[in-house]
Amino acid sequence: MSISNLHNALVEELRDILNGEKQITRALKQMAKNANSEELAAAFEEHLEQTEGQVERLEKAFEALDLKPRGKHCAGIEGLIEEGKKLLEEEAEPEVLDAMLIAAAQKVEHYEIAAYGTLCTWADMLGLEEVARLLKETLAEEKETDEKLTELASQINVEAQSAG
Amino acid sequence: MSISNLHNALVEELRDILNGEKQITRALKQMAKNANSEELAAAFEEHLEQTEGQVERLEKAFEALDLKPRGKHCAGIEGLIEEGKKLLEEEAEPEVLDAMLIAAAQKVEHYEIAAYGTLCTWADMLGLEEVARLLKETLAEEKETDEKLTELASQINVEAQSAG
Repeated sequence: MSISNLHNALVEELRDILNGEKQITRALKQMAKNANSEELAAAFEEHLEQTEGQVERLEKAFEALDLKPRGKHCAGIEGLIEEGKKLLEEEAEPEVLDAMLIAAAQKVEHYEIAAYGTLCTWADMLGLEEVARLLKETLAEEKETDEKLTELASQINVEAQSAG
Repeated sequence: MSISNLHNALVEELRDILNGEKQITRALKQMAKNANSEELAAAFEEHLEQTEGQVERLEKAFEALDLKPRGKHCAGIEGLIEEGKKLLEEEAEPEVLDAMLIAAAQKVEHYEIAAYGTLCTWADMLGLEEVARLLKETLAEEKETDEKLTELASQINVEAQSAG
């Protein structure tokens, strides 16, 4: 497919993030399992459910565009997840690992904030009201999750500092 | 090395971003060369110079910690850059490619905002004043660059919309 207009660019970016969200779903399960703090594990599990809802929203956006929800390998999210996986291989104090897991998760959130930010702008420009509505809901959720992680970090960082 | 405390976590994250910034330097050269809009090419070149300054700041941070500035492969940035490179292989209208290059660049900016955000918090907690000062300067620059890209996008998206 040649990307000849902004509508095509939007579809490409939707395919990228659809695949990305699915990769994130699998990664969040791993992160929840490896978190030391119960609160952090619960936050990852909660975000996992949210992510499943975000996948559904993306599928609805494809439907609104009369397209099949077909993903396309997202190298960006793959790299971010690989970075998180490497963390789990490190020999780290549990509390310090938690602080680093939050840092890794916030990188993923920021990827999504950038991706959905672009998508919302493009959908608005193209007058795709239903698509824009769906994407804006997810963008708001991603920003909220990032803030929640910052809040959680303020407590977990203190535990990490007194560890070791 | 085992990551037994928050200080070690900070050093690991500094090594990650040092390698990441160097990867970004090389990528920005490519992006500037492939941008269709002169203004966008100039923005990438300007950010390239800025990134070189950010590498120097990181080297000073290592110095302040009495460590050699040694990077560690940053898989996150590698994935983001790979995503950008794939764009360049697509058959795309030049104006649409520009809009997509901005989207790719904003994902990189957001990675850095997340990474430096964590680093600044940790440096403050650890009482590393000089390190925190250096990192905060860079964090402010990254946020500014992200805003500049959003501004530039508002014009380039319009060109992309009327292309094709």
